[in-house]
Amino acid sequence: MSSCVVPSTIAEYEASRKELILADRAQRADYKKGQLSELEALADKVIRQVRVAEAASVWSQEYEGIPHPFPGMEFLTGRSIIVQTKLFEILGKMPKGGLLHAHLDATVNVSFLLKTALKYPAMHVRASTALNATNIGSVLPQLSALPLELRTQGQFALTDHNYPADTWVPMLKARESFAIKLGGPEGFDRWITAALTINPTEAYVTHNTVTKIWQKFQSTFIVSAPLVRYEPIQREYFREFILSSIADGISYVEPRINFLRARPYVAEDGERQLTHREVLRDFQKVVEDVKAELKAQRREDEFIGARIIYSTIRFITPEELEWYLQDCIALKKEFPQLIAGFDLVGDENVLKPLTYYLEPLLKFREMQKEAGVSEIPYIFHGGETLGDGTEADMNLYDTILLGTKRIGHGFSLVKHPKLIELCKERGIAIEMCPISNEILRLTSSMHMHPLPILLNQGVSVALCSDDPSVFGNMGLTFDFFQVLAASEITGLIQLGEMAKDSIKFSSMEPKEKDDALSAWQRRWEVFLEYAAVEGQKFLAQSKV
Amino acid sequence: MSSCVVPSTIAEYEASRKELILADRAQRADYKKGQLSELEALADKVIRQVRVAEAASVWSQEYEGIPHPFPGMEFLTGRSIIVQTKLFEILGKMPKGGLLHAHLDATVNVSFLLKTALKYPAMHVRASTALNATNIGSVLPQLSALPLELRTQGQFALTDHNYPADTWVPMLKARESFAIKLGGPEGFDRWITAALTINPTEAYVTHNTVTKIWQKFQSTFIVSAPLVRYEPIQREYFREFILSSIADGISYVEPRINFLRARPYVAEDGERQLTHREVLRDFQKVVEDVKAELKAQRREDEFIGARIIYSTIRFITPEELEWYLQDCIALKKEFPQLIAGFDLVGDENVLKPLTYYLEPLLKFREMQKEAGVSEIPYIFHGGETLGDGTEADMNLYDTILLGTKRIGHGFSLVKHPKLIELCKERGIAIEMCPISNEILRLTSSMHMHPLPILLNQGVSVALCSDDPSVFGNMGLTFDFFQVLAASEITGLIQLGEMAKDSIKFSSMEPKEKDDALSAWQRRWEVFLEYAAVEGQKFLAQSKV
Repeated sequence: MSSCVVPSTIAEYEASRKELILADRAQRADYKKGQLSELEALADKVIRQVRVAEAASVWSQEYEGIPHPFPGMEFLTGRSIIVQTKLFEILGKMPKGGLLHAHLDATVNVSFLLKTALKYPAMHVRASTALNATNIGSVLPQLSALPLELRTQGQFALTDHNYPADTWVPMLKARESFAIKLGGPEGFDRWITAALTINPTEAYVTHNTVTKIWQKFQSTFIVSAPLVRYEPIQREYFREFILSSIADGISYVEPRINFLRARPYVAEDGERQLTHREVLRDFQKVVEDVKAELKAQRREDEFIGARIIYSTIRFITPEELEWYLQDCIALKKEFPQLIAGFDLVGDENVLKPLTYYLEPLLKFREMQKEAGVSEIPYIFHGGETLGDGTEADMNLYDTILLGTKRIGHGFSLVKHPKLIELCKERGIAIEMCPISNEILRLTSSMHMHPLPILLNQGVSVALCSDDPSVFGNMGLTFDFFQVLAASEITGLIQLGEMAKDSIKFSSMEPKEKDDALSAWQRRWEVFLEYAAVEGQKFLAQSKV
Repeated sequence: MSSCVVPSTIAEYEASRKELILADRAQRADYKKGQLSELEALADKVIRQVRVAEAASVWSQEYEGIPHPFPGMEFLTGRSIIVQTKLFEILGKMPKGGLLHAHLDATVNVSFLLKTALKYPAMHVRASTALNATNIGSVLPQLSALPLELRTQGQFALTDHNYPADTWVPMLKARESFAIKLGGPEGFDRWITAALTINPTEAYVTHNTVTKIWQKFQSTFIVSAPLVRYEPIQREYFREFILSSIADGISYVEPRINFLRARPYVAEDGERQLTHREVLRDFQKVVEDVKAELKAQRREDEFIGARIIYSTIRFITPEELEWYLQDCIALKKEFPQLIAGFDLVGDENVLKPLTYYLEPLLKFREMQKEAGVSEIPYIFHGGETLGDGTEADMNLYDTILLGTKRIGHGFSLVKHPKLIELCKERGIAIEMCPISNEILRLTSSMHMHPLPILLNQGVSVALCSDDPSVFGNMGLTFDFFQVLAASEITGLIQLGEMAKDSIKFSSMEPKEKDDALSAWQRRWEVFLEYAAVEGQKFLAQSKV
């Protein structure tokens, strides 16, 4: 235990202090970047000033139902304040790079999904009992695209007291006939929306533990699947996902599709199950269409492309997993450019750990060789947990031992010094989903989130939205906002580095990656100019 | 970005996994300890089994007003469950080592303080208005020891509707005359107790941010000071602090006394202000008495001694600080064995940063030399914050640059890789106060607490209670419990290492430290035996 030498003059002290701070932050991407351009330095400074100004203005006021607002607060409560800020407006224009962690079934806002679903006569809805004011908060809608022979005229409203339990009603009809005392058609929309999203009371009061909120979270997928997975809706959904991502400044997407035989894709007739290749074909078609349209508009820089991470849920048996691995390989053969990797998803705290699947997972590389496909890396979820040494936390060891390309979440990675070291050595980036973590109760606000720990240790991080349709964090602007708002260290430059990392650590081919980085850089320069000008205007007005 | 080699057989994989886990945990104190004795291994195993058994029994039941209990949950809500557990009972007997972070004014339980205060006729109480059912929750008691000529007969009860605002009433009388409709004497006790403690509604609902809960927290000190700092009470308070610590297995205490001219110590006559040397003399006398009593009972191993960290509050001016530094030096001259260090306390998020005091703080060493006293180290609070780059977070740089011996709290240290490295190099231990952190809203439960991160990086940690009279975490058993309950990695051995570190990093002289460690080791062996036997009995009964 050596004692240290304390500087004896103020000047000496201040020099040592500066040096120490630099040494402490030396691994951060923004510090490693070195000398900033004049424009970068200006934009970064202005945005810091806007942050300070709004902490004292918009965040210091009282709002009805929000007893003590603060920047970085619980997202579902603070969202209405966030959208009023200049910071949010400016970040909306930032080029975000790639979206590397999102579950495809939960990427498009619910109002679009609902509006689209209502167009299709095959879509029906039913409930386990007649809806009334007492049970509407707990009875879930069951949705389904029905084959012609099962479609109904909908002679009952779901809210009729004599509605026969579990009787299908065409969705449009169900909406139109929804009882006025339950809000009429808008009441119907609210009922569906509540089943597809998490509200603040659920997240912060009634379901305020990881286990409980996951139950609600999972139920949203069960309700939405028959909508999202009905081919005509699906095509529009894919398209809207990509278009809304582009509108938010995202230029590449790498969503996880959750393939599960129990949650099938259904063709337009409401009867035939789509094959997985048909799903991929639909997705690829949408991507190509959008790219062509943008090209025609000379907006190629705004969207580079998309890839799919093949996923299934960690409650299947190891034998079943083999089937999915084979299926993934078959799809990779047919869509070599589209399949980016393989993953297992679901609540790590209650479902099977990676070790449960060790045998098939260890065989995967060999299976690929036999099939003659190029490498399909694992891109595993891991450590999405508060556990310290639980199976969910221990999954992190396995993600790395199994050679994962990135880690989905890695929330508990901060507890593992050796794994942090390996992530840096091997170039394993972390797909961090700050708002998701907060709503799923891993952290109570952004200030308790471990992200700064990883940034300061020089781990590469891509910010991701996870399940924006359920959480309401559409695009990436909200996640970037929350990260920026809760720190005095992280500024625009660090956000830019994370955006760049989301391209660098994506599954694009090297050439594509280079193009994407160049495109991003061009847009970044334009954005910096905008951010500096817009921020300064705002600051000048604020002073008046 | 190198890709790694994935083991290809299960056996190979499992060997690599084991190795990786060991490498990841290699810096932990429990792993560094090496081979455990048979008894250590047994006790550790049994305690892990008890933890698992109780997670499934006592923590899986429903309790009124506790919607979803879990081990490591919010302390103020979970306390009533904790005390029912076998784990808590067993940990109660564990030798805890030293208590290195506690504010002396908040170390003795409120019922003892109240009972003691009622014995002294000088003690009076008043309120800013007559108390009634509506205002009793918000009007604070003002307490004071009064000089003879100001003492009253107490012709009014505080609860009389015509009670004249701010009129002193003898405390005993005020209690006896407390209106029945407000609970009578017990209602009086509840009123005082509520002002001296934080309740779950305050911590988790009405004051659920760091800033808000600190307001309540600070008010408890303002209310309690005139009780605790009245010499006759103070002597009993000191004694009770030490006796109750011993009863909890604590064998050394190093509390912070908060010296502040605005919060004086008062002599028995209720008039004369005590000098700081009188306060120390009283403290020293109590320590010596207790030691002598224990020696007579052949219980010397149970209590080695005590030291004081001289503290003042970080809202004074730098000029005022010089006065306190000189005062501390003068006291060190007179009580060289008693003064352990110097600190500045108070809410770092709103009060002055260490840099504000840089000039006097840099002079302190020189001042000591001039006065010819041996070194008084800084033992600074630092980083007790959720801030990322805020002044409170930046204080950590200054604690280390100024040569702190330990860091009080260091909650945000996990964000600072270079500072973690320096703490290890220089033997700077962290005084971690898990329950305090949780109640003061730095973390929402033990599962979000950064302690495991520090343990896994090999930083030395002493667990501390901070302000147990306000939080209700008397002794150290509760803090040890919370840490043990929220992890699957930390077991009895790690707790033992932290207890040992609390002796190693204390301010004892080397010889005293050696004696303390030997005494601890003797008691630890006895405890391990007890823990193993008692735990096994419990497990056997649970199975029946």
